[in-house]
Amino acid sequence: MGNFKGHALPGSFFLLFGLWWSVKYPLKYACRKNKNVCYLGSRAAFQRLEFVEGIIKAVFALIGMVAEQFVPDGPHLKLYNYEKKHWDHLMNWQHATMYLFYGISGLVDIVAHGTNALPAAMDRMMLSIAVFIEGFLFCYHLHGRAMLDVHVHQLLLFAIFGAAACIFLEVFFRGSIVLEMLRTSLCILQGSWFWQIGFVLYPPNGSPEWNQTDHTNMMFLTMCYCWHYAFAFLILAVNYTIVSWAVRSKVKQSQSMEMGLLKTSERDHESEEEI
Amino acid sequence: MGNFKGHALPGSFFLLFGLWWSVKYPLKYACRKNKNVCYLGSRAAFQRLEFVEGIIKAVFALIGMVAEQFVPDGPHLKLYNYEKKHWDHLMNWQHATMYLFYGISGLVDIVAHGTNALPAAMDRMMLSIAVFIEGFLFCYHLHGRAMLDVHVHQLLLFAIFGAAACIFLEVFFRGSIVLEMLRTSLCILQGSWFWQIGFVLYPPNGSPEWNQTDHTNMMFLTMCYCWHYAFAFLILAVNYTIVSWAVRSKVKQSQSMEMGLLKTSERDHESEEEI
Amino acid sequence: MGNFKGHALPGSFFLLFGLWWSVKYPLKYACRKNKNVCYLGSRAAFQRLEFVEGIIKAVFALIGMVAEQFVPDGPHLKLYNYEKKHWDHLMNWQHATMYLFYGISGLVDIVAHGTNALPAAMDRMMLSIAVFIEGFLFCYHLHGRAMLDVHVHQLLLFAIFGAAACIFLEVFFRGSIVLEMLRTSLCILQGSWFWQIGFVLYPPNGSPEWNQTDHTNMMFLTMCYCWHYAFAFLILAVNYTIVSWAVRSKVKQSQSMEMGLLKTSERDHESEEEI
Amino acid sequence: MGNFKGHALPGSFFLLFGLWWSVKYPLKYACRKNKNVCYLGSRAAFQRLEFVEGIIKAVFALIGMVAEQFVPDGPHLKLYNYEKKHWDHLMNWQHATMYLFYGISGLVDIVAHGTNALPAAMDRMMLSIAVFIEGFLFCYHLHGRAMLDVHVHQLLLFAIFGAAACIFLEVFFRGSIVLEMLRTSLCILQGSWFWQIGFVLYPPNGSPEWNQTDHTNMMFLTMCYCWHYAFAFLILAVNYTIVSWAVRSKVKQSQSMEMGLLKTSERDHESEEEI
Repeated sequence: MGNFKGHALPGSFFLLFGLWWSVKYPLKYACRKNKNVCYLGSRAAFQRLEFVEGIIKAVFALIGMVAEQFVPDGPHLKLYNYEKKHWDHLMNWQHATMYLFYGISGLVDIVAHGTNALPAAMDRMMLSIAVFIEGFLFCYHLHGRAMLDVHVHQLLLFAIFGAAACIFLEVFFRGSIVLEMLRTSLCILQGSWFWQIGFVLYPPNGSPEWNQTDHTNMMFLTMCYCWHYAFAFLILAVNYTIVSWAVRSKVKQSQSMEMGLLKTSERDHESEEEI
Repeated sequence: MGNFKGHALPGSFFLLFGLWWSVKYPLKYACRKNKNVCYLGSRAAFQRLEFVEGIIKAVFALIGMVAEQFVPDGPHLKLYNYEKKHWDHLMNWQHATMYLFYGISGLVDIVAHGTNALPAAMDRMMLSIAVFIEGFLFCYHLHGRAMLDVHVHQLLLFAIFGAAACIFLEVFFRGSIVLEMLRTSLCILQGSWFWQIGFVLYPPNGSPEWNQTDHTNMMFLTMCYCWHYAFAFLILAVNYTIVSWAVRSKVKQSQSMEMGLLKTSERDHESEEEI
Repeated sequence: MGNFKGHALPGSFFLLFGLWWSVKYPLKYACRKNKNVCYLGSRAAFQRLEFVEGIIKAVFALIGMVAEQFVPDGPHLKLYNYEKKHWDHLMNWQHATMYLFYGISGLVDIVAHGTNALPAAMDRMMLSIAVFIEGFLFCYHLHGRAMLDVHVHQLLLFAIFGAAACIFLEVFFRGSIVLEMLRTSLCILQGSWFWQIGFVLYPPNGSPEWNQTDHTNMMFLTMCYCWHYAFAFLILAVNYTIVSWAVRSKVKQSQSMEMGLLKTSERDHESEEEI
Repeated sequence: MGNFKGHALPGSFFLLFGLWWSVKYPLKYACRKNKNVCYLGSRAAFQRLEFVEGIIKAVFALIGMVAEQFVPDGPHLKLYNYEKKHWDHLMNWQHATMYLFYGISGLVDIVAHGTNALPAAMDRMMLSIAVFIEGFLFCYHLHGRAMLDVHVHQLLLFAIFGAAACIFLEVFFRGSIVLEMLRTSLCILQGSWFWQIGFVLYPPNGSPEWNQTDHTNMMFLTMCYCWHYAFAFLILAVNYTIVSWAVRSKVKQSQSMEMGLLKTSERDHESEEEI
């Protein structure tokens, strides 16, 4: 789907997941630091969340695959045009393949967190592979396009492969808040950059076209990419602050009720060292 | 052996090993989770398996080396043609070198698991080197070939170097089910892709030749590679399910016989956390 | 700021930080080895130092950003020239972006060490990202420049990406003296190389220009880069020796006062093994 | 020193160190497994060995530097020819720089193992940097040479950067026999490949010159490189076997004398698991 919507759709998916993670992981971390007051902090609740996430991921992936196949100008499951002897709508098939691996990752999440048949670390490995496959297909996706088009997609690859590497590390350092925040920031970056690509390559009605061969445009977009990343950190910081503040105020409330032991600050410190 | 057989042979070897591993590692994991019922789960049994694997690997490698040397159009151990002043059958020699390192890896397996002279981690290191050497020789193997030929072999390199990196990580994270599954999936991928290369470059009788310079063919094959990988995960999932189910049903059977303690689910959970 | 000052300024920043770290980390290590005598060795003191470092980093970054924007030939916050339809002073904007991320890193330091809201490992992650972004922007910064200009900046990239990787490792191996020394050496290298770039590309009054296309110049500068690195190690060694000697003499002094237990050497040895 | 000797000299150094390591590390490992009988196995003895190694490394590096400077056609410490306005003997200076870093590594070994001022892990870090610098300078060393010349040196880079990465890992996994063996094998490979380069580029009297532009020569040498590596493993295996056998026979001897406890095999197994 080489149009604005085809970039806005995955962009929205990634943004949604990034925003959700920017709430979830700070919450998880704050709950781990204040175990006594936070009933959400129980392992079971977060495991159920991961299970639900898996379902949403699988459903989104299914929607994506179906959309790529059955949009009016899509392949409708036809891969090879025997009359004209060429492959049919390879782009859509490639996008569908990307969604397929996210779907597999969603299924693995469901099985790993819904049953105890699979080791939990499997979900990260599969997600890492799904993200890697997305980047891998993008690499071979850009042949023969204009310079600027190639460049903006290449920039995307940094976020994609960075996320794949980060998630792979999570297989070994599971639950590390630092890696989770890094992943979240890269996910938001990917989402917002998809939107940016849409605006650059398919300017909405009225806007002038970007000059595809101007080198200064490339330099600006590289910098713009960094601003998107700084923006992703801003979002993370805001959500982190709100969540921390909310949990903290709830902790204080419950402490004042039960004539709290007032040792929280020490405990905080300890649990921080454990990390 | 630049023909269909020359790709089908190693492909079959890798597929065989991949399929075997897709049974072995889930079995090992399931046995580790249900220690009391699984007499196969004893360390000794799996060590003996690794020993046998080493022998099979060494024998396969020997067969491969001999085949590369003594096929009718092979070098028959002649390396340099002094009359015409050029190297003789370099391709066969390179393939034989690849097999040589798998043979060394097999020998190291035999010594590491048959005696206690070598540290066990040595087997992974040697296998990692063998896989790396395979990829290394492939890199310098493709000079002057047609675009599609180069591309399908380059795709293979992802599976090869991915497997080499994964096995090297196993030196440090030995027995991690996640890495073992990753290795298995990459091994199946390599095996099935060897077959695919055979079909693409040397179409069996009747099929039309692939256009070696058509860019859409390249794009299709890149995507096809991902489908092979998805297929590898499908095989893994099926085998994993069967093995888990078999072990579980056996566990239940033995539990009902001995009026089992019914604490298995908690134990499962604990051993999962250890991972 | 493509002039001598524009390279001397960041160079001085990096040198300053490098020199400071080459005192701080040996001091920290020596204090950890001689816990009983070193009141500076308390965790709190070093945490306060990191807090102060964060403030200095943020202030420096702010100065850098303002300088890049409001130097006489700077963009004065104007990004796009609507009359001539081109981007305005992209170089300055890129440099300002680099400073921005160092500023964010400084802010994270302040929050992570000033409050206990953020996990401490966050400071390393953010610094690693700031350094990576610096390298990332440099990569896309060099288009269309002369060969020697590109080369000296590429050499810089080794120090930058090396430092980014080293700091990222520190997220997981926090407090490893080896990684801290490596980071310090790379920071000094970066600082002194910025000065070298200034001298090479904008020779101060009187000096002859460097031939930008002479290959031997490139070879010399590559070697010169290594000498800078050796020089960085010399500085590190000198500072390390002075700090060790100072702490040791203080330890002896306090020991002779309290009729010391004379077991220090064994303790040294133990704490060394812990590392 | 672009001649046969200039490659044979470093090759001999590396071979010597590789051969020595192929005795030392198996000995260390065997001693660790049989603690009671092996007086050599004491930590102190091996630390003294590392100290002596450091001295030898520093002396070798000094010899190398002096040789590069004061060979008849060397630079004699002259760096710039002011008359002809060009750099003088840059090759020799680059080689001297390589030796310089090995010298620094030797000095760090001496200080780290002779005193307890430096953390022991520092020796690996510095050696890793020395090896990396060697590879780094080689990368920029090959400009404008013939194809085969570049290729054989590029092959060398695999051994060099592989060794640098392996030694860097040893900073974190110190004393891992697997990494030590890997390092040893890469060191032997580097040594023997230096000799091979000498023979290929400067054939000794009587031999015909190699065709520098023949692609099959490149393919043969790539394969030959792998054979060198297989040969390095052969040497390692032989030395490992001899050392293991010697230690084992000595263990048995001492056991029969003291009416040994006959529990060695279990102990072996345990210490193997610790690895």
